[in-house]
Amino acid sequence: MSETSENPVSEASENPVPGDALAGRAEKLDAADALAAVRERFVLDDVVYLDGNSLGALPAHVPDRVADVVRRQWGELRIRSWDESGWWTAPERIGDRIAPLVGAAPGRIVVGDSTSVNVFKALVAAVRMARETGERGQGGEGAGRDEILVDATTFPTDGYIARSAARMTGCEVRPVAPAEVPGALSGRTAAVLLNHVDYRTGRLHDLPSLTAAVHAAGAYAVWDLCHSAGALPIGLDEHGVALAVGCTYKYLNGGPGSPAFLYVRQDLQERFDSPLPGWNSHAEPFGMRPEYEPAHGALRGRVGTPDILSLLALEASLEVWDGVPIEAVRAKSLALTDFFLECVAAYVPAGRVECVTPAEHDLRGSQIALRCPDAGPVMKRLIERGVVGDFRRPDVLRFGFTPLYVGFGDAERAARVLAEVLAEVPGEE
Amino acid sequence: MSETSENPVSEASENPVPGDALAGRAEKLDAADALAAVRERFVLDDVVYLDGNSLGALPAHVPDRVADVVRRQWGELRIRSWDESGWWTAPERIGDRIAPLVGAAPGRIVVGDSTSVNVFKALVAAVRMARETGERGQGGEGAGRDEILVDATTFPTDGYIARSAARMTGCEVRPVAPAEVPGALSGRTAAVLLNHVDYRTGRLHDLPSLTAAVHAAGAYAVWDLCHSAGALPIGLDEHGVALAVGCTYKYLNGGPGSPAFLYVRQDLQERFDSPLPGWNSHAEPFGMRPEYEPAHGALRGRVGTPDILSLLALEASLEVWDGVPIEAVRAKSLALTDFFLECVAAYVPAGRVECVTPAEHDLRGSQIALRCPDAGPVMKRLIERGVVGDFRRPDVLRFGFTPLYVGFGDAERAARVLAEVLAEVPGEE
Repeated sequence: MSETSENPVSEASENPVPGDALAGRAEKLDAADALAAVRERFVLDDVVYLDGNSLGALPAHVPDRVADVVRRQWGELRIRSWDESGWWTAPERIGDRIAPLVGAAPGRIVVGDSTSVNVFKALVAAVRMARETGERGQGGEGAGRDEILVDATTFPTDGYIARSAARMTGCEVRPVAPAEVPGALSGRTAAVLLNHVDYRTGRLHDLPSLTAAVHAAGAYAVWDLCHSAGALPIGLDEHGVALAVGCTYKYLNGGPGSPAFLYVRQDLQERFDSPLPGWNSHAEPFGMRPEYEPAHGALRGRVGTPDILSLLALEASLEVWDGVPIEAVRAKSLALTDFFLECVAAYVPAGRVECVTPAEHDLRGSQIALRCPDAGPVMKRLIERGVVGDFRRPDVLRFGFTPLYVGFGDAERAARVLAEVLAEVPGEE
Repeated sequence: MSETSENPVSEASENPVPGDALAGRAEKLDAADALAAVRERFVLDDVVYLDGNSLGALPAHVPDRVADVVRRQWGELRIRSWDESGWWTAPERIGDRIAPLVGAAPGRIVVGDSTSVNVFKALVAAVRMARETGERGQGGEGAGRDEILVDATTFPTDGYIARSAARMTGCEVRPVAPAEVPGALSGRTAAVLLNHVDYRTGRLHDLPSLTAAVHAAGAYAVWDLCHSAGALPIGLDEHGVALAVGCTYKYLNGGPGSPAFLYVRQDLQERFDSPLPGWNSHAEPFGMRPEYEPAHGALRGRVGTPDILSLLALEASLEVWDGVPIEAVRAKSLALTDFFLECVAAYVPAGRVECVTPAEHDLRGSQIALRCPDAGPVMKRLIERGVVGDFRRPDVLRFGFTPLYVGFGDAERAARVLAEVLAEVPGEE
């Protein structure tokens, strides 16, 4: 936890702001919010939904689109839909639709499989590339690269998969706090797996400088964008990121378990040597040739037959982004989380919760994580009262702010209900 | 091609049967068909759909069920559905629903990921188990096992994935015709990847005896059931199969790209060492623990967050099997393919096509593959006239018979239209 700023939220509450004033401010902020109308693109009720960083809300037009995929594309066209309904090319077409949201040009992203499976593809490919020549052409020493550095506070699946990738490529895994990565790099480093935003604390890591440091050492950075894609600008192309994977069911609202995406930098695509070379990434998939010959481009990251229902629900969902710049989403996200913290400071007694999300904007993702000793029962009561966040063991209340459909009034209400619940639940068990 | 029986269909046409007689026979066979009413459970039109071995037809009740998953489970319950709608346990619950169709007890099958990804899991796990002790406890020699035998006529993705699994476990791949596997086994053999039914010829391989031979050699058999699951009884438990994977969008009608399944024999589950140890297979997935500790049972084959829309469409689809014994499906499948061959022999001039599917019942899956030099244009015209099969390069017309919704009248019409088309298209290009 050494790299996480811990801010007792009590500091601000020395000058308590009356609840009426905050509610009034929320109303004005919502009235002035250029993204406020985007909320109408979603199916929402009177719940304050602050769990979009776990499962994004349903875009209103998606049910009809999915019904068409099932009834007409599958039911009537059947096998013809692989061509006529564009099923076959969906993984790269949807990748191109995600691309502008993460700062990638077309042709860099392919969608399919789970995040875990994509982490495996990316890490193994990174190790293989590092051994070949290394990012800065440091050939010769490439063969000796036998270490994968992994964010020590990573979402666990990344660590499990990293250990498997290491075992299968003759590497060792070393857990390192992201801030300490530059000092941990060496001629042994093959790949570095980092989370852009920490799933628990909401801390945003410095992608440009860490990527540069990793690549300067001749290794490859693999970024997990699960908690940043759709929440803030990432600039994958601009910052020269080698490989990245991300989730589509959080801030991208693709639906439960919608497939993940894989980004491969353009100049590395011909060197991307997948550990899962399924027929969908073959240069001639219907040639049914016994020898594998990889296709060109990001679609080299494809494996087997894509799950069309989930993919096309995701594709439809992405239309909520029409006309929505990711920069505007980021600005609103910071304003929302600032305002939520202000409301918490005003409503919650000093010291009752501790914010583990950094106060600095450039260190903050799109969630607020509050530590409180009785977080489990507190979150249970919050949900019962219509404020849906989630609980992360052992003691974290996690509130995700999706600027597409969360407003300032929601933030004020969430803080107010939190204070009510905290007043009822004993502080220490 | 040496192991494929090639039967000039002309043989039977020496005693031509008049078309009227065959049409009449078809009518009687359909009237006597105990499974005829099952067709009403599907959305079908006046097309003769003989491509269910590529994409099964849509069960009629599935659109409403998918709509409920999208509108209510995702749209209204949102994150609560992971518990309340049973999303989290869907992979093993649906595995248990598939189990009786492939001869497995509950707790042996888990659903998720593509077939290719599951072949990778199974093959790597098989190699690791073989090195540990081997199937017959032949410890000591296990460490030297460095060869994976792969069906030489396999669907290509299995071969590509097998080579990757071999590369990552220090093995070599040797292509072997299934019939020659027993003679190719040695103390070097770690795993053998076999197709139960050949995707091109429709030939059924002898699962019980090949499994026994592989296991007697201390290696593990991995069966690809893509073209047999839902088409014929398999008896996985009965025959002691170690590991198997299968597709759910062919004879199981799960929808385009619906997730594959993985079978792990009960006594091997604690030794199943997955190369993709994602958080979904952790003993305590929400413990968020940095160390991986695999769950018990088949769910050890899970990886990342399951694609719920595709999974639950599959779950709904499986209800068409209510009250349908797989033995009855097999009996009808053989009767249908026999009758189709009889009609082809009666209608198509001698020597114009050659059947590459074995005539013997115990060597036949649920499809008929006819070789004809102009198969590409012939299939195009067949489809235009409402008989949908598919073309497999270079020269195979493939007709899949799904007994749940294909009738004898369909078989007769398909053969009749085939004869008409063949009369129009020049025989040799």
